[in-house]
Amino acid sequence: MSAKPGYVIGVDGGGTGCRVRLSDASGRVLGEARSGPANLCSDFDRAMANVLDGVARAYAAAGLDPARRRNDTAWLGLAGAGVRELARRMEAALEDGLGFARARVSTDSETTAQGVLGDADGVLALIGTGSFFLRRQAGHDRRIGGWGYQLGDEAGGAWLGRAALRATLLAHDGLRQPSALTRALMARHGGRPDEIARFAASASPGDIAALAPEIAAARDSGDPVARAIFDRAVRLICERLDFLGAEAAGKLCLAGGLAGTYAPLLPERLAALLHPPLGDALDGATALARALQAGPRLRAGA
Amino acid sequence: MSAKPGYVIGVDGGGTGCRVRLSDASGRVLGEARSGPANLCSDFDRAMANVLDGVARAYAAAGLDPARRRNDTAWLGLAGAGVRELARRMEAALEDGLGFARARVSTDSETTAQGVLGDADGVLALIGTGSFFLRRQAGHDRRIGGWGYQLGDEAGGAWLGRAALRATLLAHDGLRQPSALTRALMARHGGRPDEIARFAASASPGDIAALAPEIAAARDSGDPVARAIFDRAVRLICERLDFLGAEAAGKLCLAGGLAGTYAPLLPERLAALLHPPLGDALDGATALARALQAGPRLRAGA
Repeated sequence: MSAKPGYVIGVDGGGTGCRVRLSDASGRVLGEARSGPANLCSDFDRAMANVLDGVARAYAAAGLDPARRRNDTAWLGLAGAGVRELARRMEAALEDGLGFARARVSTDSETTAQGVLGDADGVLALIGTGSFFLRRQAGHDRRIGGWGYQLGDEAGGAWLGRAALRATLLAHDGLRQPSALTRALMARHGGRPDEIARFAASASPGDIAALAPEIAAARDSGDPVARAIFDRAVRLICERLDFLGAEAAGKLCLAGGLAGTYAPLLPERLAALLHPPLGDALDGATALARALQAGPRLRAGA
Repeated sequence: MSAKPGYVIGVDGGGTGCRVRLSDASGRVLGEARSGPANLCSDFDRAMANVLDGVARAYAAAGLDPARRRNDTAWLGLAGAGVRELARRMEAALEDGLGFARARVSTDSETTAQGVLGDADGVLALIGTGSFFLRRQAGHDRRIGGWGYQLGDEAGGAWLGRAALRATLLAHDGLRQPSALTRALMARHGGRPDEIARFAASASPGDIAALAPEIAAARDSGDPVARAIFDRAVRLICERLDFLGAEAAGKLCLAGGLAGTYAPLLPERLAALLHPPLGDALDGATALARALQAGPRLRAGA
């Protein structure tokens, strides 16, 4: 005697928005939706509202009544979920208040690792606006980095952008050589270093990371300042991949918006390990929701 | 036929508050007062209100009617005054709307240089929460740095604090050796790296700079992480002092909250140039106001 398995909801949520996918127990996608930002640390109530909005839209897209979710299972990978009490609070709201059979909230690094690597061992470098590095081995994950723009996120887009703006001000002061890149950045701010300082004081990581494509293009055209910034970024990436034992793991995946930028810059010994990601964080959240649904607690209750 | 010279007002204003001094033309102090923060970039209207509040208090402290200021001259050194249109806007408000005979708004680096060096040639390193470096030569100032916590302010308190928090997270990840300092900082945040990241994401430069005395004490007790941070800070300071030609100038003044911390760390060739500051930014603002009062425009109108 076993209950008909319910549907599964996967959520990938961060500072720019949520993606939500509703699937059946076999993995067939029934409906997808997008909603607003969900960073538990920045604004818990807003994150909750946006998650609920996205979930309701996904049921609607599938032509399903969300009231049936008392049989369904959700996995949410959300920015800020490293703060455990916030993650537990959202899980309780989803299970008790909203009646999901089961809901789990994890960091987006966990759903990304699952999406990119699946259940296989390997090393992952996620490099977008921010960055983190992770080794998955025998079901155990070791993550390093990902501590945000102020203190970490080495080689990420915001890190690159800040390095370029710093170089621009050092060149203005005369302490470093200018380049086409620093001249362009200075000209963009009317030739006024105080305007650059003012921009940086209030810019979000995303605002600063918006400079990354321009810095990458400058590097490709031989700009010495851009080359120096990328050389340093690649050194930091290699240090982290070596620390995590990428060569011993034998498999390396790059993901995030700068994956394609960094892949050709890796030394051959690491480039030889590259595998394309299996999927993304939303795939990972869906896979984790399916595993949770199939897991011991639900089976015991069936 | 010359009018009786008016009084002079000097103002030193920044992110933490304003100090205001009312003196007579001979330099005798008649009254002093404090008021709230005045950073033109952060909030112009609030800066204006706090400046006016401080000025009114200084006249009151001197037992004078502020209505008499149509004969008086003011010099304000304010954070954010590097943005020239904001500085001009405040000058116009002080002269036209409030009837000062003459008012000038400059950066606080200009009033600090005047206060510390007077009219003499020399090199100044101002190192507090932030930092800048300046050479005054034959009445001309060359300033480098001072671009704020995100992009510059090398060796300042916020720079030191951020470096210590970064080292703490690198030690947590296993990429660097921990030390008594990194263990203490980690313990202060409940052993949770995400709490450190969260603190840094929202902390003001002043919040981060509050760690500087602890890092300096750790250095003094031989903590290797603190020593490495200070070694790097001193290298950056020396690079800037050499770039400005401190040895050729023959005179070096350190000012700001960390002056006493860095003085004993300088190499002998630079330490040999050290002179105590003549005064501070409020002395400088007062001196500049007196010079302005004695200057050609007022004399022409007398």
